[in-house]
Amino acid sequence: MQPMKISDINEFELIELIKKTIGNEPALMLGIGDDTCVWTSPSHEMLATSDSLIEGVHFEPDQISWHNLGYKALAVNLSDVAAMAGTGSVALVSLALPGNVRTDDVVSFYKGMLELARKTGIAIGGGNISRSPIINITVTLIGTVGPSGRVLKRSGARAGDLIAVTGFPGSSAAGRAILAGKHKTREELAAPLLDAFLRPAPLVTEAAICARLGASAAIDISDGLLADLRHLLIASNIGAIINTGELPLIPLLEAGFSHQQALEMALSEGEDYQLLFTAGAKEMEGILRAISSTISVIGTITKTEAGTVEFTENSELIKKLNLTGWRHFG
Amino acid sequence: MQPMKISDINEFELIELIKKTIGNEPALMLGIGDDTCVWTSPSHEMLATSDSLIEGVHFEPDQISWHNLGYKALAVNLSDVAAMAGTGSVALVSLALPGNVRTDDVVSFYKGMLELARKTGIAIGGGNISRSPIINITVTLIGTVGPSGRVLKRSGARAGDLIAVTGFPGSSAAGRAILAGKHKTREELAAPLLDAFLRPAPLVTEAAICARLGASAAIDISDGLLADLRHLLIASNIGAIINTGELPLIPLLEAGFSHQQALEMALSEGEDYQLLFTAGAKEMEGILRAISSTISVIGTITKTEAGTVEFTENSELIKKLNLTGWRHFG
Repeated sequence: MQPMKISDINEFELIELIKKTIGNEPALMLGIGDDTCVWTSPSHEMLATSDSLIEGVHFEPDQISWHNLGYKALAVNLSDVAAMAGTGSVALVSLALPGNVRTDDVVSFYKGMLELARKTGIAIGGGNISRSPIINITVTLIGTVGPSGRVLKRSGARAGDLIAVTGFPGSSAAGRAILAGKHKTREELAAPLLDAFLRPAPLVTEAAICARLGASAAIDISDGLLADLRHLLIASNIGAIINTGELPLIPLLEAGFSHQQALEMALSEGEDYQLLFTAGAKEMEGILRAISSTISVIGTITKTEAGTVEFTENSELIKKLNLTGWRHFG
Repeated sequence: MQPMKISDINEFELIELIKKTIGNEPALMLGIGDDTCVWTSPSHEMLATSDSLIEGVHFEPDQISWHNLGYKALAVNLSDVAAMAGTGSVALVSLALPGNVRTDDVVSFYKGMLELARKTGIAIGGGNISRSPIINITVTLIGTVGPSGRVLKRSGARAGDLIAVTGFPGSSAAGRAILAGKHKTREELAAPLLDAFLRPAPLVTEAAICARLGASAAIDISDGLLADLRHLLIASNIGAIINTGELPLIPLLEAGFSHQQALEMALSEGEDYQLLFTAGAKEMEGILRAISSTISVIGTITKTEAGTVEFTENSELIKKLNLTGWRHFG
């Protein structure tokens, strides 16, 4: 039997299929199937963010499964909510799809999204489906301020604060290069890099700890470590110095990227959904003790011009790097 | 001087331009420029909806101005919130744009959206910008249950209720046909039809009155009158009879469409952001007295199989019509 394409059924049949895949969402008073979804928010303090995954820009359809695409479309939004120390409540999904997409791919997409949604207490509230010559997946995540009652903004960094980053920035770009066949490495070394690109893990718990234990500012580094550090510095009207030697490059170097490639990827490539945050020395100590995942203290906030980033060593090499951040219209 | 394209500046400069265009949003604690927007909701009872406008599917760039595109992208979402008798609070905008779009077009787009947002108390909270080979505008509107405290669902229609529709369904399709050069008519007759397509007016006040005065169910007819009536009937597990002669066709007939074309457009074309609602005879009387805009009572809810629609007259003609509703993947 031929697999069924979404152009073989009408929009309402497709919505029924999605409704069946999602099943019951007890957190919602009304879910898929009315003009809007309706729910009771546990708090008046609301957060919301939107992010898109676009075919040919953010992914190639033959390099990521529909399951992981669904997972990632929610993860990139949850990463933004997490960076504010928030909690996700309801996700809306706008799918723009060519008619030749298979109905079972749409089901896999929602199953991937549900995998992350169920783990993180998010209800899928509906959204929209349209035909389109290319795939565009836009998810909006609505949530509330987390249990600490604090919002972690970009603007709270103060001179003397330490700067820390979770995980291994550049991993997502490395994973994408491996998927595209531009770099070869052993399977066990590739696995965490592929995961960083295909299945990024939003740092909800880590950010909540940061908020509770007095971090001064935070941002997710989806635009690249350096670009997002600058966003944080400009919002805080201050500068920073980075200890070049403390940048976490191990998985990139182990996977056979050169030191220069690893530095470029770690500093400048986007789509790493790691958390960059600042805290006073004492607060940082508490945070490092409380969080079990990898964190590197990579520098210090300095009383220099807003957005200035200096490096402690290798500054000649770093000047020569191709550090553009994630340039959306280039 | 050459007009500037968005590919001439980087993403962050474009976000600054948008931020400047939107200006201060006092309803938000944090707006554009952090990972998420943050606001205090006036109520715990939340609503949310998403809708997309896609180049070549929902509009042709040479047939609608960027100002009206911005207006309409918000209007189609507000129409869904209105159909539930809700109030809009915060809109998130995901723009996927080719690099050759002009920066002043992006400014016009936001000015168009702001025109409607300012009138209806909606704050623009941010969103996302990505490059894309085609334009995809996805807006998510988050709001609260309106002043009546009631949510108007699709599922409340009961046998004996009257069925009413606001305005002149089919006008949007007629306007689109005129814009595309497929139909010619005098300018003053074309104007309301073009407006229906280019600048639909969400019926927030009308829906709030319906909720307050006891309407039993409501839906916006963005998928077409007949398709959306069926959605309402299926959700209510009931049928309906339509008084064919009561269908509001006047502007279509006056603009020179044949009776058959007018019937087809009124019953089956999508993108009319009018309100279809049901109410008991007594409640309907009150609603008709309270609402000043055009409303036609077009039929009655009947104890027939869920989703059945019968017509009082011309049923032979209606059977011959091409009534598909708004088919998204056809």
